[in-house]
Amino acid sequence: MINSPAPPVRLALIGAGRIGTHHATAIAHDIHSAELVAVVDPRVEAAQKLAAPLGARAEAEASGVLSDPDIDAVVITTPAALHRDLIVEAASAGKHVFTEKPITTELDEAAQCVEAARRAGVVLQVGFNRRFAPGFIAARRAVADGRIGTPQLLRSLTRDPGPFGGEPARIPLWTIFLETLIHDFDTLRWLNPGAEVDTVTAHADALIRPDARDDGFLDTAMVTLRFDNGAFATAEASFSASYGYDVRGEVFGDGGMATAGSGRTSDMEYFGPGGVAYDTSRADTDLLHGAYVGEFKAFVEAIRGGQPDIPTGDDGVKALQIARAAIVSIQQSRTVRLEEVTR
Amino acid sequence: MINSPAPPVRLALIGAGRIGTHHATAIAHDIHSAELVAVVDPRVEAAQKLAAPLGARAEAEASGVLSDPDIDAVVITTPAALHRDLIVEAASAGKHVFTEKPITTELDEAAQCVEAARRAGVVLQVGFNRRFAPGFIAARRAVADGRIGTPQLLRSLTRDPGPFGGEPARIPLWTIFLETLIHDFDTLRWLNPGAEVDTVTAHADALIRPDARDDGFLDTAMVTLRFDNGAFATAEASFSASYGYDVRGEVFGDGGMATAGSGRTSDMEYFGPGGVAYDTSRADTDLLHGAYVGEFKAFVEAIRGGQPDIPTGDDGVKALQIARAAIVSIQQSRTVRLEEVTR
Amino acid sequence: MINSPAPPVRLALIGAGRIGTHHATAIAHDIHSAELVAVVDPRVEAAQKLAAPLGARAEAEASGVLSDPDIDAVVITTPAALHRDLIVEAASAGKHVFTEKPITTELDEAAQCVEAARRAGVVLQVGFNRRFAPGFIAARRAVADGRIGTPQLLRSLTRDPGPFGGEPARIPLWTIFLETLIHDFDTLRWLNPGAEVDTVTAHADALIRPDARDDGFLDTAMVTLRFDNGAFATAEASFSASYGYDVRGEVFGDGGMATAGSGRTSDMEYFGPGGVAYDTSRADTDLLHGAYVGEFKAFVEAIRGGQPDIPTGDDGVKALQIARAAIVSIQQSRTVRLEEVTR
Amino acid sequence: MINSPAPPVRLALIGAGRIGTHHATAIAHDIHSAELVAVVDPRVEAAQKLAAPLGARAEAEASGVLSDPDIDAVVITTPAALHRDLIVEAASAGKHVFTEKPITTELDEAAQCVEAARRAGVVLQVGFNRRFAPGFIAARRAVADGRIGTPQLLRSLTRDPGPFGGEPARIPLWTIFLETLIHDFDTLRWLNPGAEVDTVTAHADALIRPDARDDGFLDTAMVTLRFDNGAFATAEASFSASYGYDVRGEVFGDGGMATAGSGRTSDMEYFGPGGVAYDTSRADTDLLHGAYVGEFKAFVEAIRGGQPDIPTGDDGVKALQIARAAIVSIQQSRTVRLEEVTR
Repeated sequence: MINSPAPPVRLALIGAGRIGTHHATAIAHDIHSAELVAVVDPRVEAAQKLAAPLGARAEAEASGVLSDPDIDAVVITTPAALHRDLIVEAASAGKHVFTEKPITTELDEAAQCVEAARRAGVVLQVGFNRRFAPGFIAARRAVADGRIGTPQLLRSLTRDPGPFGGEPARIPLWTIFLETLIHDFDTLRWLNPGAEVDTVTAHADALIRPDARDDGFLDTAMVTLRFDNGAFATAEASFSASYGYDVRGEVFGDGGMATAGSGRTSDMEYFGPGGVAYDTSRADTDLLHGAYVGEFKAFVEAIRGGQPDIPTGDDGVKALQIARAAIVSIQQSRTVRLEEVTR
Repeated sequence: MINSPAPPVRLALIGAGRIGTHHATAIAHDIHSAELVAVVDPRVEAAQKLAAPLGARAEAEASGVLSDPDIDAVVITTPAALHRDLIVEAASAGKHVFTEKPITTELDEAAQCVEAARRAGVVLQVGFNRRFAPGFIAARRAVADGRIGTPQLLRSLTRDPGPFGGEPARIPLWTIFLETLIHDFDTLRWLNPGAEVDTVTAHADALIRPDARDDGFLDTAMVTLRFDNGAFATAEASFSASYGYDVRGEVFGDGGMATAGSGRTSDMEYFGPGGVAYDTSRADTDLLHGAYVGEFKAFVEAIRGGQPDIPTGDDGVKALQIARAAIVSIQQSRTVRLEEVTR
Repeated sequence: MINSPAPPVRLALIGAGRIGTHHATAIAHDIHSAELVAVVDPRVEAAQKLAAPLGARAEAEASGVLSDPDIDAVVITTPAALHRDLIVEAASAGKHVFTEKPITTELDEAAQCVEAARRAGVVLQVGFNRRFAPGFIAARRAVADGRIGTPQLLRSLTRDPGPFGGEPARIPLWTIFLETLIHDFDTLRWLNPGAEVDTVTAHADALIRPDARDDGFLDTAMVTLRFDNGAFATAEASFSASYGYDVRGEVFGDGGMATAGSGRTSDMEYFGPGGVAYDTSRADTDLLHGAYVGEFKAFVEAIRGGQPDIPTGDDGVKALQIARAAIVSIQQSRTVRLEEVTR
Repeated sequence: MINSPAPPVRLALIGAGRIGTHHATAIAHDIHSAELVAVVDPRVEAAQKLAAPLGARAEAEASGVLSDPDIDAVVITTPAALHRDLIVEAASAGKHVFTEKPITTELDEAAQCVEAARRAGVVLQVGFNRRFAPGFIAARRAVADGRIGTPQLLRSLTRDPGPFGGEPARIPLWTIFLETLIHDFDTLRWLNPGAEVDTVTAHADALIRPDARDDGFLDTAMVTLRFDNGAFATAEASFSASYGYDVRGEVFGDGGMATAGSGRTSDMEYFGPGGVAYDTSRADTDLLHGAYVGEFKAFVEAIRGGQPDIPTGDDGVKALQIARAAIVSIQQSRTVRLEEVTR
């Protein structure tokens, strides 16, 4: 007699762009406990092209999957402007929700998402993937088991692989805070458990594309946070690192320090006429593929009633609040108290 | 319309021991393109305990799976003494075969396996997992793309995590060569592509359990190889490293050097009162889990007709031949030419 | 015939405290081109105890060495409050001056020092020793040779070895800026050559000794600088790192990034049951002994008319100005423009 | 009153070649406790060119310095063929002797040196500089304090910086054993304190200059040692490493492992479009300058009656004996017992 394992969680992915393509493929290939059933995108050929080789169906609109009783959960990888409506509708339809970060770009909308998930009793997880990268997990564990003591100085940074080829005019204002540093804000909270941010002081500029500065474009930023347990933190971002995708964290306390993130793609070292070298990754989906797989495994586990440590809707709200405070800090050239920034 | 992806390859695993448990679970959880259908073990409760939660059936004998037309391939994780019969029977039944190393312990038996697979036209892959570890892959790539030049000096080592708790009396003679260093012999050949070993000089002793020396037990070994392209290599093994599982490789040539293997389990570094530390792994299935997954993905790809770079039956024979030469070297206290050691 | 090398530069050291003891010994033992002639300290026994084994004479007051025509230069290692008078008097007496950082604690006094040295035509060097540490030198070289491109994001930090055993009541106000971060302010300027700081935003608190907070004691600080070439920088300090003396730098630009400072005291790595570990240094005079030697060699070279790249009196003034701006930033809880802070 | 420190030890250096030039300069510039008085070389212009800027006198023959009562010790940096006569004469003249490795190239001559020094009661130190490199010191300390336990597997290697530009016809036979691996043989003994080598198995070839193979030239070697405490060791050498001077050691025992030697010249890491890189050294006098200074400081200390841990004449003999056994092993293609090789 076969004691059958739990049937796979049936997922639909909404948004067949770059990150949606990665996630759909990762779910289909690397997550045994999940089954990719459908891919939704208004550009239906894109949906079809992604879905077919993965054995999933393509749809142009979300309504089809939201009304499909055989679908357990949705993974939202659309532009952030669409998150609120999709999250609220999916939750209301009883679907568990995994949304890429940021949860939304507006605090009131984020609150609606959290409330909708709470009411429906579904899982709402935000795509803060660093929480699933081995180095960051080990750093968090060093905090949790007391080896760091009380955090006093923290750092988190994100540098996207260069050269920067984006079109500033097509990038929404405040993207560096809402899309990039939102990761670092979550990481800093996660590495300082139990503490919350009190004040935010942000500096930013267009250093990579100074020609776009007058349009309000920002590509480089440095933000200082003060936590209510006294700790200071910096979050740093750049849209263009010549050497690839760079994600690092550091937490220092009265007991010790942990650093995470090396950029290395393997433990091979090459010694040649130019010195010694090791390879760095060119993309988040390269460096953090394993972390992406990890977050989906945790999502499935949460749906099945386990208690994995996932970034929740509340975590999404908190990180967004810090990002919004950073934006006010830039607009008003001053330190902003987090409590000033509410829905 | 859904352009359905290839159906999963249907696998039966034979041998529900420590490594079989790992492999069955990895196949069931991490290999999207394969389906674990059955687990075979004469200790049928062990087979049942492993199979049930993975959704597979349990059998006491291999004959059932070998005659099952719905099974495409077998994964052999039994003691090495049983490999020959199982490989020959499975190949003859038209099943593709993945066997844990060593292919067999005797050269004539190994040749029978290769011949059976050749005749049946099935894939025969040997479990040399380091070929699928990122650092070793990168080192091999550095050789392949010319950055190393002609290899001149190589090194490969295996140290099992200590403390050693084995019972010498129950460990077959020559295990250190046939089961442990066989990995290093394959790695050294793989990092010196196109070259073959000419001579083998082996030294070994019971340093961890000197009390078992008189019974022929060997727990520490150092082997020097000479390749036909002039390169020298050392292979080193110990049954007990206090700091965990240690697997490293090095290839030095006139163009440069590559090293692989750090023992690190993540890129976290902890700075505390005792200095700086990073974690090492305690087991092969910990350090090399990703490599195990990689070898099974390659196995599936090979079955589907792709041309992945896999360790073949021939590679299994070559590594075994080196191991047998090392044994003769120990027995006769002299350098042995590889050609002396034939079936 | 012997073409005699240049005679050694004859030095007197003023201030026989901890760092004076290190410097006197380093000069006597490790600087072939200098001769330690005298040690001055009002605690004449301390001067005697330090001077005698080094073959130097002891004096209670500086006047003796300043009027000694056989003395070429002085090394000032007294408390900072005494720097101005000593520097001005020594320069006026025609002695070259090496002063420990900070040049002075007040900007008008610092200007007087620079002016006195300028008028007398003597060398005035400030003890920013990181400019002579191999890793920092290599980072600066990466900037200078264009590998970094235009600096955009910089970081420098200083963490003193813990546990902190100081007596807050006996530590002058603002020490963390004037004595500790002054190093980082110089490093950041040095790694961003040609640029100067525009604005300073400082945050600080007593996290190690919160009991002393009400007295104005500060033991942890994080400062954000904005440079006139657009670059952002953070400077970070703590009075107590459990793992030893921690000094690191990072400069990131559109061409690449350089990091300096590992805390390692050797390239030995120890692999044991607790993982892998390497040793860190417990003191600046341990980690940076070679840098101290390097700065004295450069001082001698400058005296002899060479053009070494040394931190000058002007560099001392610039770093002090940043420190003073940071203090105003703390006092007024706002970003301060450097130009607001003048003598 | 000045309690004068000990007067400097007065040294004469014999042999103004490459390493002699380094050592004379290091002694003159970096060793406070020694004074370079004379440089001896039959090419008297070379001696003069080296001596003059260092304030020393030049001589064409050693007799002048050996009969000079003001000279305390000699540093011998001539070709090895001249070592025996110089060491014996210097010792007989009551001079302390520092000789570059190897002590001599013949065992009977080495014994004469040791005997001469013993009779005269002078210090006889051999230039095994790795004993003074920080990483190797730390590794030895890990052995000495028990963290390694009983050594079981050791490794030491030397790879000279390439490209190899030597003229094989002008390089004495067996140079790779007598001049290069002699370092590794000493290191392996030093990292396995109290144990001595039992057997030696050597392999070597001309891989860099195969055209010179027929003349007996050897540029690449791999040697296996067996110690009387059971430990196995490999010593490895190459005359040409594309990435610079490579010196590493490893000692593994039942308690743990220590590795030493990274080739890094600083802790700077550069992250650029080609990945991450750090600098390696191009020469022994670059990588190991500090170790050279250390060995001369120890020499002075030994002369003054201290008990520093220096490589003695006996250590020179032991390393030479291993080298001679390796040569016999090559000549006779067999494992050689050390006891077979005596004067």
